[in-house]
Amino acid sequence: MASEIQAIRWEGDAVVLIDQTRLPAEDVDFECRDIDSLVDAVCRLVVRGAPALGAVGGYGVALAMVQAQREQWSPERLDAEVARVRDARPTAVNLAWGVDRVRPHMSQGIDAVLAEADRIVVEDTAANRELSRRAADWILARCDRRPLRVVTHCNTGALATTGWGTAFGIIRELAERGEIELVYLDETRPLLQGARLTAYECEHHGIPYVVQADGAAASTILRGLADFAVIGADRIARNGDTANKIGSVSVALACAAAGIPFVVAAPSSTVDLATYSGDDIEIELRSGDEVTAWSGLSTTPSGARGFNPAFDVTPAAYISAVVTERGVVEPGPGVTVDAIAGDAL
Amino acid sequence: MASEIQAIRWEGDAVVLIDQTRLPAEDVDFECRDIDSLVDAVCRLVVRGAPALGAVGGYGVALAMVQAQREQWSPERLDAEVARVRDARPTAVNLAWGVDRVRPHMSQGIDAVLAEADRIVVEDTAANRELSRRAADWILARCDRRPLRVVTHCNTGALATTGWGTAFGIIRELAERGEIELVYLDETRPLLQGARLTAYECEHHGIPYVVQADGAAASTILRGLADFAVIGADRIARNGDTANKIGSVSVALACAAAGIPFVVAAPSSTVDLATYSGDDIEIELRSGDEVTAWSGLSTTPSGARGFNPAFDVTPAAYISAVVTERGVVEPGPGVTVDAIAGDAL
Repeated sequence: MASEIQAIRWEGDAVVLIDQTRLPAEDVDFECRDIDSLVDAVCRLVVRGAPALGAVGGYGVALAMVQAQREQWSPERLDAEVARVRDARPTAVNLAWGVDRVRPHMSQGIDAVLAEADRIVVEDTAANRELSRRAADWILARCDRRPLRVVTHCNTGALATTGWGTAFGIIRELAERGEIELVYLDETRPLLQGARLTAYECEHHGIPYVVQADGAAASTILRGLADFAVIGADRIARNGDTANKIGSVSVALACAAAGIPFVVAAPSSTVDLATYSGDDIEIELRSGDEVTAWSGLSTTPSGARGFNPAFDVTPAAYISAVVTERGVVEPGPGVTVDAIAGDAL
Repeated sequence: MASEIQAIRWEGDAVVLIDQTRLPAEDVDFECRDIDSLVDAVCRLVVRGAPALGAVGGYGVALAMVQAQREQWSPERLDAEVARVRDARPTAVNLAWGVDRVRPHMSQGIDAVLAEADRIVVEDTAANRELSRRAADWILARCDRRPLRVVTHCNTGALATTGWGTAFGIIRELAERGEIELVYLDETRPLLQGARLTAYECEHHGIPYVVQADGAAASTILRGLADFAVIGADRIARNGDTANKIGSVSVALACAAAGIPFVVAAPSSTVDLATYSGDDIEIELRSGDEVTAWSGLSTTPSGARGFNPAFDVTPAAYISAVVTERGVVEPGPGVTVDAIAGDAL
């Protein structure tokens, strides 16, 4: 069996990340020894993926404490630097969740904070294993064809989480059961997390796949080439509305038109009961340069402006099932995802 | 007023094309002096766009006759080379239509063939002007907001036609009437006809625009940022089902979900009454390398396969209006587009 990929680890006094901006060409680490470099890594997507950002939040507090000791910060400065980690990206609830979860342990010292951050990792990976089993059972009960063909968007594997994966974890679970024929990976413009990262993870685990332009997903689905689609989530509102990588809602609309299941998968920490619906989710608007250039080469006339929202919101009406480690909810009028949300902090 | 862009012209004994693979970085011509180079230009998308391919079909027959004279081809060889032009790409009906339209003139010599090919150009450009006026009137009658914000996909301007443009011609018409606030251009992966070519034409004509990833179109529409969407067509079936650049049907599904008009625009020669529905349209499957690499740089792990259908089919049920120079049809059960089709050859 292939080794597990570990996107985030604590080593010495540093947060060490696999540099996901350089995959698949180069497999190198990015070491964060201070908060500036960690915030930079989060903003440049050296590390990304909602569940992975939960662990970054946890270890980020430990890193701030190490730097505070080394540089003799005031308590106010430490608070401000922890807040910078918490707010480095706005859409995923997990980054703030990870910070908030370890923060109460700060008064007991760095070891207590690290122990809590480690627990985030262990629990998140276990949650991914459990949600994958639950979702695989749900999907196999609803799709007749064997083996299955699936569309997925962005990267939701070990690289996006603390281990195993969410939507991609479901694909791994189904592949281990011998039920996957082919994965259609959306390349996921502008930053190609599908083409670069999910393809890398498919290769790593020997799962058969093809890469398609994001615009091809709808026709793949409408032509009957896929049996279901599954995506991760950056934030799930109480009514089931789901923020995820830009392009997700197109996949959902096509599944609804074709009458095949569209599944959202995330650990329960991604469910934000304080957000009632998708209308209340702030969507990160990233630099237009990510759209108008490519590896430093401009793809547009000089002077072109890019419009680059990082996420979209899929209304619950187009979601067949939301799955966390706590169970499966099929959204509908008056239905909420309370039953599968995490515990309030 | 900006000069008109001319994508195709006959010069000396050659078909001269603007090399659209090199725009917007370089504005250079590609000269075709034999059928090999013309077929190569069509396959590599030096020239593309359904209406432009109609003119290529017409001038291609003239080019074959010039080469036949120069190289003393047999009549059988000439027929075979004309057939190669006709079949260089399968999805757009216009290439075959252009060839078939001039072929009866071959017995009267090259000048007669050229005169007929010139008539294709004059008529196509006039058709684009007329369909743009008709569609602009239809859109202004249905959208309340002023000025209008529009989503479009791929390139349908002068570069894709013999002049003026189809879907982009409608945007030009509305812009000349002072009714366009902003064009959201889908970049149109894998070959970026939107980012490269439509952006170039917007710059050329001073029309305000932003470039977005294809995956962003649905959320732009669902968030209420656009008032309508308009695309061109590579083939329109009798019931209104429309083959167009991969990614088009996503835009249509989003418009249907948001309740805004989705308009298909093409000259009447794009309507293929012999094709009853989208199920009968052959979809060109292009090389997967167009998806897995970028300007020679691989974007995926080595060994990755791309899945690269060049077109998708938008079912008539998701199309608000099909417009040709002959009029507007609003598709629906039992409705056909016969009334706005071209004359049978």
